[in-house]
Amino acid sequence: MSKLILVRHGESEWNSQNRFTGWADVKLSEKGKEEARQAGKRIREAGLLYDLVFSSVLTRAIQTQHLLQEEAERVWVPEFHHWRLNERHYGALQGLNKAETAEKYGDEQVHIWRRSFDVVPPLLEEGDERAAWNEDRYKMLDRNVIPRGESLELTIQRVLPFWQDYLAPALLDNKTVLVVAHGNSLRALVKYLDRLNDEEIVGVEIPTGIPQVYELDEELNKIKSYYLK
Amino acid sequence: MSKLILVRHGESEWNSQNRFTGWADVKLSEKGKEEARQAGKRIREAGLLYDLVFSSVLTRAIQTQHLLQEEAERVWVPEFHHWRLNERHYGALQGLNKAETAEKYGDEQVHIWRRSFDVVPPLLEEGDERAAWNEDRYKMLDRNVIPRGESLELTIQRVLPFWQDYLAPALLDNKTVLVVAHGNSLRALVKYLDRLNDEEIVGVEIPTGIPQVYELDEELNKIKSYYLK
Repeated sequence: MSKLILVRHGESEWNSQNRFTGWADVKLSEKGKEEARQAGKRIREAGLLYDLVFSSVLTRAIQTQHLLQEEAERVWVPEFHHWRLNERHYGALQGLNKAETAEKYGDEQVHIWRRSFDVVPPLLEEGDERAAWNEDRYKMLDRNVIPRGESLELTIQRVLPFWQDYLAPALLDNKTVLVVAHGNSLRALVKYLDRLNDEEIVGVEIPTGIPQVYELDEELNKIKSYYLK
Repeated sequence: MSKLILVRHGESEWNSQNRFTGWADVKLSEKGKEEARQAGKRIREAGLLYDLVFSSVLTRAIQTQHLLQEEAERVWVPEFHHWRLNERHYGALQGLNKAETAEKYGDEQVHIWRRSFDVVPPLLEEGDERAAWNEDRYKMLDRNVIPRGESLELTIQRVLPFWQDYLAPALLDNKTVLVVAHGNSLRALVKYLDRLNDEEIVGVEIPTGIPQVYELDEELNKIKSYYLK
């Protein structure tokens, strides 16, 4: 039996300002840091001796990972950061205040962008300074693979190769694996593991800073899952 | 041209108590954390966009690495922790207060253990609770490879395969590489890069928290080195 532990990063400086974040690289707020330490404490108290840690390449996830690991007393565990675990890319909405966006585009349109499965937000345009194309951390990627805006569906399509290439092989090797990521990249894993359809996953809210443990059989079917509260 | 940046971790909780540390897994003191942040600030201000980070598997080095990376705004850079970068193993002296040890064994003997090239300290005995044999982080190692006490010479012999297998290939690929480690494991690299003999390296003191940059030519010969102060 293998175990997969999912942790959504805690509050960031933009969450508390109610702004669309996506791939914008904001840091954790003090509250978010405390959520990360609490998650580490819960993992330590549950005796979960994870063998590997994966996160996105966004600072708020890596900060969460590091603080969690200090509290769990396992900073030495091999850790890997991968762009496929990044948050859903919010396109031209990134950085905008959610209330202002609703005023400009209407509540209904914003609701659709936030809560639909396959509707893509307005794309970032070439040359927009908010684009990630020129960031050092993405310099090894084919430019065409860097999103300019994603639906939840596109996010899931981008995350699943990470499951196939990294998480599944480690879990098949009976490792206990920790993933520290974001609401929508974690939804991709939850949808897959819980066999949810497109409508069901839209209704799933991943709580911040509460580790969710999946126990998987030797073919990676879910035996059970539970939160460490 | 490639660049190698060496950083020795800052003060630990045992440094300030004047105790032999070695492989004992103590944490940074508050002063040590501040040294780590300063190192990150210096690297950021020098514009050194490192591509890879390596540390030992000891918590004080990894804490330094993480704090440095936050300050350098490069937490997303791939990082690797490896036992070969650990501090010199201080055998049965680990955990002892240096003054007490001098009282017990005599000043001269302690001076020899601390300042000779090839004298091994008293070895840890089988069953000593300070041994690392049963630690989770070393569980994948051949038991015989885990030291029970090392001279500087043995430490260097253990570090050099890491240079050969990890650092040299990355540097030959023109990467800028950051290594966060310990006084004696860094001495191994300095001895090699500066072509020092056994007597010369004993006299070299690596300062804590001050990044040392080596610029290397395409055959990894040193062009120049300097501290970021």
